[in-house]
Amino acid sequence: MSAPLRIAVAGLGVVGAETVRLISTQGEMLARRCGRPVVVQAVSARDKTRDRGISLQGIEWFDDPVAMARNTDVDVVCELIGGSEGIARDVCGTALDSGKHVVTANKALIAMHGANLGQVADTAGLALAYEAAVAGGIPIVKALREGLAANQVNRLQGILNGTCNYILTAMRETGRDFGEILAEAQAHGYAEADPSFDIDGVDAAHKLAILTSLTFGCEIDFGTVHIEGIRHIDSIDIRFASELGYRIKLLGIAEMTDAGIQQRVHPAMVPLDAPIASVEGVFNGIVADGDFVGTTMFEGRGAGAGPTASAVVADIVDIARDRKTPTFGVPADELNVARVAAMADRDGLYYVRVMVRDKPGVFADIAGALRDSQISIESAIQRGRAEDGVVPVILTTHETKEARMQDALRLIGALDSVAETPRMIRIETV
Amino acid sequence: MSAPLRIAVAGLGVVGAETVRLISTQGEMLARRCGRPVVVQAVSARDKTRDRGISLQGIEWFDDPVAMARNTDVDVVCELIGGSEGIARDVCGTALDSGKHVVTANKALIAMHGANLGQVADTAGLALAYEAAVAGGIPIVKALREGLAANQVNRLQGILNGTCNYILTAMRETGRDFGEILAEAQAHGYAEADPSFDIDGVDAAHKLAILTSLTFGCEIDFGTVHIEGIRHIDSIDIRFASELGYRIKLLGIAEMTDAGIQQRVHPAMVPLDAPIASVEGVFNGIVADGDFVGTTMFEGRGAGAGPTASAVVADIVDIARDRKTPTFGVPADELNVARVAAMADRDGLYYVRVMVRDKPGVFADIAGALRDSQISIESAIQRGRAEDGVVPVILTTHETKEARMQDALRLIGALDSVAETPRMIRIETV
Repeated sequence: MSAPLRIAVAGLGVVGAETVRLISTQGEMLARRCGRPVVVQAVSARDKTRDRGISLQGIEWFDDPVAMARNTDVDVVCELIGGSEGIARDVCGTALDSGKHVVTANKALIAMHGANLGQVADTAGLALAYEAAVAGGIPIVKALREGLAANQVNRLQGILNGTCNYILTAMRETGRDFGEILAEAQAHGYAEADPSFDIDGVDAAHKLAILTSLTFGCEIDFGTVHIEGIRHIDSIDIRFASELGYRIKLLGIAEMTDAGIQQRVHPAMVPLDAPIASVEGVFNGIVADGDFVGTTMFEGRGAGAGPTASAVVADIVDIARDRKTPTFGVPADELNVARVAAMADRDGLYYVRVMVRDKPGVFADIAGALRDSQISIESAIQRGRAEDGVVPVILTTHETKEARMQDALRLIGALDSVAETPRMIRIETV
Repeated sequence: MSAPLRIAVAGLGVVGAETVRLISTQGEMLARRCGRPVVVQAVSARDKTRDRGISLQGIEWFDDPVAMARNTDVDVVCELIGGSEGIARDVCGTALDSGKHVVTANKALIAMHGANLGQVADTAGLALAYEAAVAGGIPIVKALREGLAANQVNRLQGILNGTCNYILTAMRETGRDFGEILAEAQAHGYAEADPSFDIDGVDAAHKLAILTSLTFGCEIDFGTVHIEGIRHIDSIDIRFASELGYRIKLLGIAEMTDAGIQQRVHPAMVPLDAPIASVEGVFNGIVADGDFVGTTMFEGRGAGAGPTASAVVADIVDIARDRKTPTFGVPADELNVARVAAMADRDGLYYVRVMVRDKPGVFADIAGALRDSQISIESAIQRGRAEDGVVPVILTTHETKEARMQDALRLIGALDSVAETPRMIRIETV
């Protein structure tokens, strides 16, 4: 058996501590699968005295993770601190500069600086591994980079944020409102105290930008991801979605279109019988359509200590076995610069909810706005009477361009009889 | 860029021809992902004159695939002939003996002789790659061997045969009988002229035996797989399954129990909201429960030229990149010999359909047989009157042992008022 693979772990939050625990409890099995022992030789965190439920005996302690990345004699540095700037970035950069492989769970860092760090890693023949950064325990990076390597994947869509999926699932199951469910999720630890990163779609967008690069062999381009979150989803929308045969999911979509690559994160209605509709609660799911393999789906827990540690250690096993792959599937200097398709070019179906003052002619006004934007109505529902006289009108459209839909929403929003900003949810049928 | 990776393809049926076509049409992309070109340098098949829709210009032709495996100067031999014995086995053995990597889609060969061939490959430092042998285009071998390598997977269940899943799905959707749907599947090419390999569960069992080895790090042991097919599933069972909140699927299950490893292929009822229940039609799906990652699911097309070629070429890309993994995840000489749990030890729920002559006391007789076998009834349905006086009694049980259920089925089958052999379907709730 070969020499042990020596690991340094930077950051001992829930993921860091679980990674140390996993390597210890699965030691014998890992040694068989790696062909060599894996040992945690150094760790770094802020507070040495805190009880994390793991033994750090015999493991070198560093207060400064960057000093650890530079000075300690290990093969791999695991960066489990988080954040796209500052210490996390310094740890990864320093480790690579010192000839050490890097394994990270840091989606923000890879989305913002993966191109540069990947270039450094590829040039030095080192791993910059980030399976844990996307969809937690689901081995989707490996699937796209290796398992589906024979395919051009032309479209990928994923439920990439477990907090949002938990909220949307709970809203449907209980009929309750967004705010209530969010508060409950925070109480259960499924949502952060400041939830905006999750519920406004930024976290999903970080992951999507990484998947887009892997899928299309292009440089990561986080800046051009169209991002909308789930704050505006009302329990009315959830109810009407069910009635129309859909579920509402926060999707990340990367698609090759005639106009270029489109990257977008937004709530979407998906048909009830689509595989991704059955991905519920805190689970993540990714559907990739390859030109030879057809449709594939990968599902699992997208966050949490166990699933994330599972992905971190899978990357470590690859390094132990010397299984090498360029950071984004092809060498960094061969990555294309993506031609970006504008969001205005999206072709598809739309759901629109307009809250109207219930008086004669309002429906004709809305229909006129859609006609003037050259949009055909596929179905319309107006139901119920409210005490305040405000009732929802629900419309679905035939296929149209996003730009026309935005025009229509402006026209509808300006109508006298319309009481609130009209809400639109895109329908994704493929 | 390095020297080309040279491929020989043995067998030019639909999969072989599609593999040649894929390597040609995706050439540029593959070269980027492999860091070197991939070229088909030699092929072998029975009939040189047949039009397969691909150009064989510049490719060396062999009538004898074993001679090709021995004599041609290539890096990889793809065995796409099929069958566990004879030529296919000789091609793989000869290729390995001649220092060539082997890629195969042959589940029967790996299930029967994978242990020996894997030993040869591991000792010689060669690849014996078989992603295409299990679940077609789904990269499940890679997922288990690498992506989930940090986990002990304690239970795996899969829909591993697309023909059976197509038939069961169509029976449910149309309400029609097994025989009719099978005939239709044969007409559409979803089922073979001799369908027994698929519908009697042998094909699924081959795949399961391979997955069991990967999951538990034990030698493949096809002989101890408990195998039942779907011939006895009646449209009545499909209807009652829906009514009880289940779907019927042909499952392959590998499970670590207190008594050892249990491998079984049989029809099973799964809850409607279980992820695997939504795997429909010709699709395959595998659920793996890891101790750190939790539940993961992998879904895609389990057969067909495109998906199978996708998996074959994924293995080729691994070889091109020199990504090495022991054949069954750990070196062949470190594989355990599995302790086998008897089928009689299964603990679980059961569905039983008894066709009875409708007269007073019959229900009491059946209930008595279950009582005498120490089985508790969870629900019972007797409904409808038939002209011939034969009606179904449907029972579901609380958790019990398989051995007790087999006792009960014998007792019930021997009752005077019972018109046909009672049918039992296991209920899998996890």
